[in-house]
Amino acid sequence: MTIIRPPSRLFRGYVFDLDGTVYLGDALLPGARLTIQTLRAAGARTVFLSNKPIETRADYADKLTRLGIPTPVEDVVNSSWVLARWLAQEAPGAALFVVGEPPLQEELQAAGFHMTEEPRKIDFVVASFDRTFDYHKLQVAFDAIRAGARFIATNADRYCPTPSGGLPDAAAVIGAIEGCTGHAVEVVVGKPSPITARAILDRLNLPTAECLMVGDRLETDIRMGRESGMHTAVVLTGVTTAVLLARAEAQPDYVLQRLDELLPSTERARCGCQEA
Amino acid sequence: MTIIRPPSRLFRGYVFDLDGTVYLGDALLPGARLTIQTLRAAGARTVFLSNKPIETRADYADKLTRLGIPTPVEDVVNSSWVLARWLAQEAPGAALFVVGEPPLQEELQAAGFHMTEEPRKIDFVVASFDRTFDYHKLQVAFDAIRAGARFIATNADRYCPTPSGGLPDAAAVIGAIEGCTGHAVEVVVGKPSPITARAILDRLNLPTAECLMVGDRLETDIRMGRESGMHTAVVLTGVTTAVLLARAEAQPDYVLQRLDELLPSTERARCGCQEA
Repeated sequence: MTIIRPPSRLFRGYVFDLDGTVYLGDALLPGARLTIQTLRAAGARTVFLSNKPIETRADYADKLTRLGIPTPVEDVVNSSWVLARWLAQEAPGAALFVVGEPPLQEELQAAGFHMTEEPRKIDFVVASFDRTFDYHKLQVAFDAIRAGARFIATNADRYCPTPSGGLPDAAAVIGAIEGCTGHAVEVVVGKPSPITARAILDRLNLPTAECLMVGDRLETDIRMGRESGMHTAVVLTGVTTAVLLARAEAQPDYVLQRLDELLPSTERARCGCQEA
Repeated sequence: MTIIRPPSRLFRGYVFDLDGTVYLGDALLPGARLTIQTLRAAGARTVFLSNKPIETRADYADKLTRLGIPTPVEDVVNSSWVLARWLAQEAPGAALFVVGEPPLQEELQAAGFHMTEEPRKIDFVVASFDRTFDYHKLQVAFDAIRAGARFIATNADRYCPTPSGGLPDAAAVIGAIEGCTGHAVEVVVGKPSPITARAILDRLNLPTAECLMVGDRLETDIRMGRESGMHTAVVLTGVTTAVLLARAEAQPDYVLQRLDELLPSTERARCGCQEA
């Protein structure tokens, strides 16, 4: 029994998750380039969305361009950019302590925020994916939150998959800070948050019902798409397997084995894509 | 309205929490020395119990002795010793990865366990209070648990109070590992675990109903005492205030303002203790 349910129509806007959807590591997934080329040629808008805060939007745009999918930086949204955008509305000029890597710090500095390690001067503790996380950072975060700082995070992913297994992601930092302070994180801006959905839909500038969210994760990509009113398609090239999908309560509108199943069969024939 | 309810009898065995009960930092709390001297002179057994795994039992015995309460190492129980004792029954000779400080590692090595950082060789990941916690340790713990290692902890205290605030304690390490692995810690041996109650009661070797648990924390000291069938007394010299106590659902049998209220009034008069 096949569970594959490709869409039979085109949409005006497409949101593509990156890792596990468009590429895996440094290699494009089958059909990705032709699919995006064809959709763009048909007049669709395409944006790319990642929860990863350890590289900048420009890094992702460069990578896509290098892989044969020319993409301007404005068409990439990641959780550090969403955080900077959210904070700029919520508390412009606030003092931050960031448990995160240099690209996130730079994004926030560029948005007019300054960093401090003095607990009583910190307005927000920002938890993120941080491969330099240590006890000193934990101590500053603890002291600041006990002194009244607010506690927010870029994303809540448990780990970032790698060829050898995975890297502990922002959920580890959130868990450490929640564990010692007893304070739950107040806002997580990354997928599946409606804050990210809003940032994406603002960029697409299209009616929500004309947009399709395409990703490999049910609990982030598909959940965010559903909750924001987009159509949703899961592609089984990343973390979601057919078995996981069958067990899931909330089903996406569409299920793809390969990204080029987004194209109606006439388009696939025209562009020479391999049939699934 | 006073909430003070001292006991009107003596017990055959007394379990004293240390920080906030017998001493604060490096100073004995009022009445502590005379109380323990008097109880011992009356034939009672006294043992001391700490959740702190960053010093050895010998360190605590030395400190008590130095402060004027001569105590053999056998009368001190802390969470690292309880962990070593529990593991020696559960999995003698197991391979461990310890997110903890040298005193805990030494306690476990002395009990016949060996340490490794090779994820596939690790039988147990041990989370503890660790002021040298960093991303490398988090990565090893993550890899080991994903490869099938069991996940246990010495204690689950959020933070260790200090004059300047507090130090993130084992709950931070547990939270970080739970956050990235999605696995809940399987066993926490420290207070209020019945594993610690068992270790204490084995040491006292008295009927449980003849023992009094004395401590400053409702959620660890008093909870463990109640659940194990001991009598319980909270002393308001540490983290529990009269307001917190009034709000608490589970009440201890006795409430003390000072430790010497453990002594019946005749004893207090005889030893010259100040009345509360």
